[in-house]
Amino acid sequence: MKYLVGDTSEGTAVFAVNGENAVNLTALDPTVGSDLMGLITNPGLADSLAAKIAAADNVPVSSITPALPVAAPGTIICMGLNYTDHIKEGGYDIPEYPALFMRGKNSIMAAGQPMVRPSCSDQLDYEAELMLIVGKGGRHISEQNALDHVFGYTIFNDGSVRNYQRKTHQWTPGKNFDDTGAIGPFTVTPDDLPEGASGLKIESRVGSEILQSSNTANMIWDVRKVIATVSEYTTLEAGDLIAMGTPPGVGHAKKPNPRWLKPGETVEIEIEGIGICASPVIDEKDAKSKVAAA
Amino acid sequence: MKYLVGDTSEGTAVFAVNGENAVNLTALDPTVGSDLMGLITNPGLADSLAAKIAAADNVPVSSITPALPVAAPGTIICMGLNYTDHIKEGGYDIPEYPALFMRGKNSIMAAGQPMVRPSCSDQLDYEAELMLIVGKGGRHISEQNALDHVFGYTIFNDGSVRNYQRKTHQWTPGKNFDDTGAIGPFTVTPDDLPEGASGLKIESRVGSEILQSSNTANMIWDVRKVIATVSEYTTLEAGDLIAMGTPPGVGHAKKPNPRWLKPGETVEIEIEGIGICASPVIDEKDAKSKVAAA
Repeated sequence: MKYLVGDTSEGTAVFAVNGENAVNLTALDPTVGSDLMGLITNPGLADSLAAKIAAADNVPVSSITPALPVAAPGTIICMGLNYTDHIKEGGYDIPEYPALFMRGKNSIMAAGQPMVRPSCSDQLDYEAELMLIVGKGGRHISEQNALDHVFGYTIFNDGSVRNYQRKTHQWTPGKNFDDTGAIGPFTVTPDDLPEGASGLKIESRVGSEILQSSNTANMIWDVRKVIATVSEYTTLEAGDLIAMGTPPGVGHAKKPNPRWLKPGETVEIEIEGIGICASPVIDEKDAKSKVAAA
Repeated sequence: MKYLVGDTSEGTAVFAVNGENAVNLTALDPTVGSDLMGLITNPGLADSLAAKIAAADNVPVSSITPALPVAAPGTIICMGLNYTDHIKEGGYDIPEYPALFMRGKNSIMAAGQPMVRPSCSDQLDYEAELMLIVGKGGRHISEQNALDHVFGYTIFNDGSVRNYQRKTHQWTPGKNFDDTGAIGPFTVTPDDLPEGASGLKIESRVGSEILQSSNTANMIWDVRKVIATVSEYTTLEAGDLIAMGTPPGVGHAKKPNPRWLKPGETVEIEIEGIGICASPVIDEKDAKSKVAAA
């Protein structure tokens, strides 16, 4: 099944996608809720909806404005250096353990929303990544059982502000600028993809310029290994997000000059069988403030 | 004002502490809620309670089981290497920017709750830290205005599993083992402490063994600077937590042998004017699972 969470004139809803058309599942059954958490935490719900979907009205996918698949993920864990060639272009050795860091909720936004280049840096970079959404939580999950804990797969652009990522050895600031990490729009359940979402073409582009082009089969730590590794130290929970690292071709490693994203460009991340995550780049001065009214 | 969030026979409540006694503010006014978020997001509430506190019944502080000051912090940002001597004992150079990383919610627990040594490592270490709780959120907060964004100060034990912290250059795994970071029990508002909570004695101990002993005046990046630095890249929100780094004396740097925490010990972090955060250390096999029932 392919899902899309998005805004319509009747509010945010979960849609089942079939080609260019989609069925509003939240309208069919309000317990679905306004993001994927209803389906994630109630595994029987999808089955009970299946019969209703066939008879339901369709809306065009193009009429839906994507929202985050999980509105308030508990934890967003990201992997660096998971494709051999990308490690070499960054000047790192191939490690024996994945480089793991976290992103906070203010750093992410839905596909289609602006990707904000901060005023303090012109080094805004893209990173095409597979992202998994945790279904059933757990700790000490074995590699063997790991895929039972995946609800689905989506697309992530792990937008990075490179000079802030490298201010110290800890990457956190450069990976956590407001509105730099796009997620979505589609989430595909494991039964509609190869095992572990391996073997899928993954690409990033600006217009006709292909920036990264690889295959998820080239990941050093695959989905099974990452779930086992992360759940050794922390209890994974339903709706947690894990980003699987990026292939070669990021902007900072381009020769002879880095290829930073510029306001006015739209960066697209495509993963075969999942879809395209497009983000128009804007300058911070043109972005909406996230500060709540006092 | 000194606050304590804690469990009583009537549920979790917020208490105003005066010496050995405390007044249940949630009982006086249910809008206070069951953690500090009510007071944080409604700055006028504390004033409206002041008159009622004097006339209210007291309970002994010792009868209250501490809970987390903020039950579900949006973001937990931690600083490494913020005391000059601690940087040297870890073998790092003094950086020009703070080393920032994040902890997830499963890695923290309330003061008094068990600190869990994982089965996979015997390198469980303590770190005495001042922690600030963000009051008014904001982005691009100036050093000059930074203290207006602090709701209060509490104590943090940034419990670390050292061999996992150093698996790669990214510290995340070693800083995110379930139930390793104790917070609390007391939160003191800025008006009851020196400016920026500077000049306070900070210590960690096991029994009579003093492990760390320093002063918050020795921090390289003080509270003003950290708030300005972090809010350059992310929008801070009410209830976010920022841990201010630890002084020298951590277990992994003890000579001639590292001093790891062992099950059966109780580690105490004390900060002058705030209180003591005590955590009994237990082995993972004796810990409660955090995995939700299927």
